[in-house]
Amino acid sequence: MKIPLLGTLLITSSMMASSLVNEAKNAGLMPIPDSKIKLYKLIDNVKNPITDAKVNLGKQLFFDPRLSKSGLISCNFCHNLNAGGTDNLEAAVGHIWTTNPHHLNSPTVFNAVFASSQFWDGRDPDLEKQAQGPIQAAPEMAATKKHVEDVVNSIPEYVKSFKNAYGQDVKINFTKVTDTIATFERTLVTPARFDKFLTTNENSLNAQEKKGLKTFIDKGCTTCHNGIALGGSMQTFGLIAKYKYESLGDFRGDKNGMVKVPTLRNITQTAPYFHNGAIKTLEEAIVEMGRIQLGVKITKNEAKDIKAFFGALEGKKPYLGKINLPNSTDKTPKPNLK
Amino acid sequence: MKIPLLGTLLITSSMMASSLVNEAKNAGLMPIPDSKIKLYKLIDNVKNPITDAKVNLGKQLFFDPRLSKSGLISCNFCHNLNAGGTDNLEAAVGHIWTTNPHHLNSPTVFNAVFASSQFWDGRDPDLEKQAQGPIQAAPEMAATKKHVEDVVNSIPEYVKSFKNAYGQDVKINFTKVTDTIATFERTLVTPARFDKFLTTNENSLNAQEKKGLKTFIDKGCTTCHNGIALGGSMQTFGLIAKYKYESLGDFRGDKNGMVKVPTLRNITQTAPYFHNGAIKTLEEAIVEMGRIQLGVKITKNEAKDIKAFFGALEGKKPYLGKINLPNSTDKTPKPNLK
Repeated sequence: MKIPLLGTLLITSSMMASSLVNEAKNAGLMPIPDSKIKLYKLIDNVKNPITDAKVNLGKQLFFDPRLSKSGLISCNFCHNLNAGGTDNLEAAVGHIWTTNPHHLNSPTVFNAVFASSQFWDGRDPDLEKQAQGPIQAAPEMAATKKHVEDVVNSIPEYVKSFKNAYGQDVKINFTKVTDTIATFERTLVTPARFDKFLTTNENSLNAQEKKGLKTFIDKGCTTCHNGIALGGSMQTFGLIAKYKYESLGDFRGDKNGMVKVPTLRNITQTAPYFHNGAIKTLEEAIVEMGRIQLGVKITKNEAKDIKAFFGALEGKKPYLGKINLPNSTDKTPKPNLK
Repeated sequence: MKIPLLGTLLITSSMMASSLVNEAKNAGLMPIPDSKIKLYKLIDNVKNPITDAKVNLGKQLFFDPRLSKSGLISCNFCHNLNAGGTDNLEAAVGHIWTTNPHHLNSPTVFNAVFASSQFWDGRDPDLEKQAQGPIQAAPEMAATKKHVEDVVNSIPEYVKSFKNAYGQDVKINFTKVTDTIATFERTLVTPARFDKFLTTNENSLNAQEKKGLKTFIDKGCTTCHNGIALGGSMQTFGLIAKYKYESLGDFRGDKNGMVKVPTLRNITQTAPYFHNGAIKTLEEAIVEMGRIQLGVKITKNEAKDIKAFFGALEGKKPYLGKINLPNSTDKTPKPNLK
């Protein structure tokens, strides 16, 4: 009688997994498309279409510290693409070692394209607009629009690349620079094992990860953490109870108290957590979220399982290739550390 | 009579070029070997041999800001491998936005392996010893040895990579970390057009570059700027006249007033110039060097030609590939911005 029993078990196991895939889909979890055409439909911007020329130029600009007043701080300083796309600090540090005045944590730039808005208070609609902020913010890159324009226009290789990307008549102004950086950022998408699980192979998650996913859904986390990014929408923060580290920093959300839900992709690489970076471990972040957003108790073991599931959201980072910043000229504005 | 005349001219031109190659060699200028075996004979360290495992690990460590006290400053912060291997500031800036107390300019890490000693005062004999300095210096990365050891030992992927590089019984201490970074740095060699000129093809330099090289040799610059790095030895600074920006910073060389001669490879990418970064343009640096070291007048046009020659020293940067820093764990020491 062993063979039929084994057969039954296999079918049950297969049905269970399949049912978990369906549960995840029904809960609004979505994969990053594995076809470039489908992906580009999601990440492209009709007003600022993605082209290879813009992506390559935007990559250089993203890594170029000369865009900052000090000449020391590139976009990559706070959004480290060699790591999880953040600085792993509680709150961002920028020009003259200034901590973000609201004690706000740098969100990851990976998969930011999938968010419905940008910044913790969701004030900007897309990456193009977002990219204009930190470059000019006094505690971040502290540059003026004119500084950025003067730097780029003083470097012949950049001028050539802009002409190549936008045509010979391009006027290289601040918006063109930030649009180009945003184009590069749109491509910073990180497919993970979880995407394989949702689409082609249920066994891409191990038993604990599946258990974690099931708990994640059952507890109601997917109410906010859904879509491709498992996050990215604006939601009421502290819906059920007050966040225990609320006193760190003065951020209280947008005018309606809404806060951007962070993506959970690569969350294992973006500690510390919450808008003010007050929580150091994922387990604590998971338990606290259950308490203040859902009014549910998440045990330590359940948090461990959910954390294991988050490991399956750690994605493959895009290949960056050589960056090779073009040479300054005598006309390039000099760094100003003050 | 036209054909014989043309023939004569061609022979003369070829002989001139060939004679310039010989002049350059006689003046002590040497190429980066284009064979890996010959190169490794020069760059390897018998006490700390180069292996792929160490280079790959050293590359990650070089880019890892977690080695610093703040978690923000990696080796790459001052020695930007996406640019000329420097920060392009007058003087280095590090922990808490502190400028180097002696107002010393960050030297490039590219081709530093060819220097006979390290640091502006030549106090360290090799890159292995050098790498220990900035990580611990309070105005740079500000880390203790224990911090570095705790970070690396808290990250399982690093521990695995150290075992892979040094054997299962490796004790991962501070010296192992800095030795590994140094191994990576030893490979940061940038072959340039000038090397082709010296070895295989005289036409790798254009007419102005050749003129610049000839002037460079005739004026006596090769007295100090020779060898593979076109620099790298210790020499008396201000031999003939006093450096006009000497008052910026308090650096006066080693105990004998000797200063490390900077490499001229990639010098077009490492402005500003001199130990205190006081000179912003290459032309001015060239003229000032002629005045204070050689007691010769270098005209603006001669300086332009020499600068053109320096363009031929701009080298091909090593391919870095993906860096992908390994994940922290809950045991990884937290950033400390103070």
